[in-house]
Amino acid sequence: MLRTHEAGSLRAEHAGQSVTLTGWVARRRDHGGVIFIDLRDASGVAQVVFREGEMAERAHRLRSEYVVKVTGEVSKRPEGSDNPDLATGAIEVYVSDLEVLNEAAPLPFQVESDVEPGEEARLKHRYLDLRRSGPAQAIRLRSEVSRIAREVLHGEKFVEVETPTLTRSTPEGARDFLVPARLRPGSWYALPQSPQLFKQLLMVGGLERYYQIARCYRDEDFRADRQPEFTQLDIEMSFVEQDDVIGLTEKLLAAIWKETKGVDIPLPFRRISYADAMAKYGSDKPDLRFELELTDLTEYFKDTTFRVFQAPYVGAVVMPGGASQPRRTLDAWQEFAKQRGHKGLAYVLVGEDGTLGGPVAKNLTDTEREGLAKAVGANAGDCIFFGAGDPRDARALLGAARVEIAHRVGLIDENAWAFGWVVDFPMFESVDKLEAGDVAVGGSNWTALHHAFTSPTPEWIDTFEESPGEALAYAYDVILNGNELGGGSIRIHRADVQQRAFNVMGIGAEEAQEKFGFLLDAFKFGAPPHGGIALGWDRLCMLLAGADSIREVIAFPKSGGGYDPLTAAPAPITALQRKEAGVDAKPQDKAADKAAEKVEPKA
Amino acid sequence: MLRTHEAGSLRAEHAGQSVTLTGWVARRRDHGGVIFIDLRDASGVAQVVFREGEMAERAHRLRSEYVVKVTGEVSKRPEGSDNPDLATGAIEVYVSDLEVLNEAAPLPFQVESDVEPGEEARLKHRYLDLRRSGPAQAIRLRSEVSRIAREVLHGEKFVEVETPTLTRSTPEGARDFLVPARLRPGSWYALPQSPQLFKQLLMVGGLERYYQIARCYRDEDFRADRQPEFTQLDIEMSFVEQDDVIGLTEKLLAAIWKETKGVDIPLPFRRISYADAMAKYGSDKPDLRFELELTDLTEYFKDTTFRVFQAPYVGAVVMPGGASQPRRTLDAWQEFAKQRGHKGLAYVLVGEDGTLGGPVAKNLTDTEREGLAKAVGANAGDCIFFGAGDPRDARALLGAARVEIAHRVGLIDENAWAFGWVVDFPMFESVDKLEAGDVAVGGSNWTALHHAFTSPTPEWIDTFEESPGEALAYAYDVILNGNELGGGSIRIHRADVQQRAFNVMGIGAEEAQEKFGFLLDAFKFGAPPHGGIALGWDRLCMLLAGADSIREVIAFPKSGGGYDPLTAAPAPITALQRKEAGVDAKPQDKAADKAAEKVEPKA
Repeated sequence: MLRTHEAGSLRAEHAGQSVTLTGWVARRRDHGGVIFIDLRDASGVAQVVFREGEMAERAHRLRSEYVVKVTGEVSKRPEGSDNPDLATGAIEVYVSDLEVLNEAAPLPFQVESDVEPGEEARLKHRYLDLRRSGPAQAIRLRSEVSRIAREVLHGEKFVEVETPTLTRSTPEGARDFLVPARLRPGSWYALPQSPQLFKQLLMVGGLERYYQIARCYRDEDFRADRQPEFTQLDIEMSFVEQDDVIGLTEKLLAAIWKETKGVDIPLPFRRISYADAMAKYGSDKPDLRFELELTDLTEYFKDTTFRVFQAPYVGAVVMPGGASQPRRTLDAWQEFAKQRGHKGLAYVLVGEDGTLGGPVAKNLTDTEREGLAKAVGANAGDCIFFGAGDPRDARALLGAARVEIAHRVGLIDENAWAFGWVVDFPMFESVDKLEAGDVAVGGSNWTALHHAFTSPTPEWIDTFEESPGEALAYAYDVILNGNELGGGSIRIHRADVQQRAFNVMGIGAEEAQEKFGFLLDAFKFGAPPHGGIALGWDRLCMLLAGADSIREVIAFPKSGGGYDPLTAAPAPITALQRKEAGVDAKPQDKAADKAAEKVEPKA
Repeated sequence: MLRTHEAGSLRAEHAGQSVTLTGWVARRRDHGGVIFIDLRDASGVAQVVFREGEMAERAHRLRSEYVVKVTGEVSKRPEGSDNPDLATGAIEVYVSDLEVLNEAAPLPFQVESDVEPGEEARLKHRYLDLRRSGPAQAIRLRSEVSRIAREVLHGEKFVEVETPTLTRSTPEGARDFLVPARLRPGSWYALPQSPQLFKQLLMVGGLERYYQIARCYRDEDFRADRQPEFTQLDIEMSFVEQDDVIGLTEKLLAAIWKETKGVDIPLPFRRISYADAMAKYGSDKPDLRFELELTDLTEYFKDTTFRVFQAPYVGAVVMPGGASQPRRTLDAWQEFAKQRGHKGLAYVLVGEDGTLGGPVAKNLTDTEREGLAKAVGANAGDCIFFGAGDPRDARALLGAARVEIAHRVGLIDENAWAFGWVVDFPMFESVDKLEAGDVAVGGSNWTALHHAFTSPTPEWIDTFEESPGEALAYAYDVILNGNELGGGSIRIHRADVQQRAFNVMGIGAEEAQEKFGFLLDAFKFGAPPHGGIALGWDRLCMLLAGADSIREVIAFPKSGGGYDPLTAAPAPITALQRKEAGVDAKPQDKAADKAAEKVEPKA
């Protein structure tokens, strides 16, 4: 090692020792001919002192972020000049030897500054950004989170398995990234959207307990805060039921929060059915740090003459104290709704005397007005917001309003960690409910809500195709503060059930065989009951780090459009690369394929 | 859980308990109406007994690899029927309840059999293959090796960082796999051949100690036992010298061998210079389980009249007792040489009386004959093999012969673990020495032997361009039993030195800036001295497992030509996929690029 000590490790007991330190020139102060420099390395900072004369002379030439090696004697700081905020604040090092290991050109932004650089500059010069304490800590935290997770899983006898990333395109709800296969011209690999099929194959292979911190790839339209490659903690278990996967996940998350945050998360987490989550919170990942539930008023308004409320669903959410919002603010709520694809956000203001105001009130009958505040639990001075129409759409709007209300009214304890499970998901959803960018797996009007391999619950296993819209799946999502941390399911382990599920999604036997015949084949040879979960590692680390973007917990994130400002990837390729990679080759004929399938002799 | 106990966990002390087990029907015996089945799960095997009558009746319908759940009472086996070879051999379970969880069709090969299935069948039905004890153990061993490595590295304060895999093509000696970027039509990502540049950027970023068990990609022509995707343990450290990286690696390997094999590897490993390795063993990864060195006879034959030995290099290796090889065997040695691209393998047989025989002997002068045996250390009855010509080629042939001799004569202790370091590598090699499939980085006759970012040793740092063929690099390979386990180097950390190294390789400033300007830029802002190593994880696990192919320690390996017999990847893509992925798009103009580079707002 070029150094004898780490800068951040020096304490009063080192006084009198000669040490050699290496690191970067951070802050610097000149004081009557003496130069004080904060020398920074990964462990922290130590104050090094260049006394008047030759040393100070040489130190004068040091600029920010020069890399230096200094040798000197550790000394207790003079009485009264201790810095109790700094771990090394009791000492300083009187430098007797200085070597410049590398120089630094003038910086695009200051490393040691309270001014946050722009994100474009940060990403382009990520190697400078990572010298800043916040970004460095986020990356270290992520490493620690992975370590804790592995420790828990190892204790539970899980086996870490690396699954292929040059693999076959399988339908999992988004577009695949594709890779031309030079040695099989005309054929392409796909990068996996998840290790889903491989982890199921490992269960068929008798591994019983698998995990992997796995890189996954989705060629999506980069909605807010998505990355083309992302990481998930991927887990699969055999001979288990839903409660086993849930129990393990809770243990894992509790260990992570305990070790990184010192927080005891109460177990078990609260569970809520998908139906309840939608009804009460208008979201399948409700923020449970506060209550404020939606009220279903469909029945209440069943005979209404107000056209807007003559809808399959009418619901409301109350904003405490919202009656005093100025007109401008109430108009802004209309804008809020429009941005989410709704016409507006109907509201009724409850006056201090209990009379109802606002444009909607006059459309209501006396009876409707009279019982309304009580029906929704509103008090004098509150504002009642309404959603009406398709239940899913209207609830989504009210759910978004609920969260916005909580922020504005201050209902959210920013220190709370509200974990929960959403369970009893529908097995299928109608394809017209898919979000933009998602891809239906089959050709019918139904697609899997979780994914195509999710088992129905036992009560639906024989009849799910009769009522695809009602059948429930053994699927579960773990949520935290309004975020989905991850999700999983008990899988179908019988080939006949899998094919029946495919049939509902419009995937015939032939298409199924073509697309993932290998999984169906595997199921013929003794597949055990199994299930698992995947946790979105980027998001989990982001929440732990208190960051507002997953880019903060990714060492080298991409910006919008999948562009990397640091390496300028992606980039055009040369004609030679294109030719060699076989991008334009036609698929080989079957005979050639057969020949190439031969297994090579062992080395 | 569907079970109360793991099958392999049952012992005599469980006698009398009621247990529920789940697993696969392994071997089965009928004995006077009673059916004995070995029930296998991941933990092992337990014998379950179906007594005459209804239970035996139902058990009769069970076939190999059915998945079952059985409940019954644990009982000590009758006196004399214990199986001491089996962990559960003291007990059996009398089944009172049987549930078939899944059936199994007739198998393509037997899981419980001493007959090794063909490799093509194994890969195609890998989920069955992994139920076999050997393949399952190899995968579990690999998981354990990764766990131990992480534990050591965590103890040494290393930070695990995930680096991008959708990145920019960089020249590292092989072809890149390419990925079209749909959102930037005409641009392509490359899959990384290693995280080399990112780990160096992390050092510039002040991380100091990085590791990752990283997936890497090389589009090679699948020479023996290569995979298009492979794994390396990737390590980088700042403020270190060669000895620090070597010391850490030795600690890591010693821990792995200790914990998995119970073997104490003596530290430090033996070190040998590249020049010595080539001179003594004809290999840069010599098998050090045995000595048997090559002898340099160039000086000895400097005045020879024998045309074959009038060469820049003449060397020899001795085969103890080889003089008694029949003519047929000596002919086979000629074939051995021809397969390696040489004309033949000249030899001299040392008779029991010391006289020299064989076709070469008569071409030598009396003086040459007289001193030969002594010069090469041969005894009566030995055979002396010769290599002459270009030193590198001739030594490579003798090195191969040396290993072959050791196998034939039995010089190799199969239980030995002969670790070593090869150090003092040349910085550059001539491009005409590149192996087929490797790609020179620049346009000159010199290319980096290790890689383009390797530092010269201090004595060469100012002068390497004057004698590129002699300059030494701070590079080191760790070897084991004739295999290269990994390699690393101290990196160049100064932009000016890096550009000078590029110049030797024919990479001008402009090309360098185009190809990895981001690294050169980073070096301008205070890069610390740093170095690292990468260990080939597949090969390391293969050697530990005693396997003869890396495919044995990969969960889902590809066969020749990068084909996966299980999923049938790669496969043709549809016209729609091709269109959507933007495979045929022309690169955007620069203005459009600029617009797309904008960083998205945070979520």
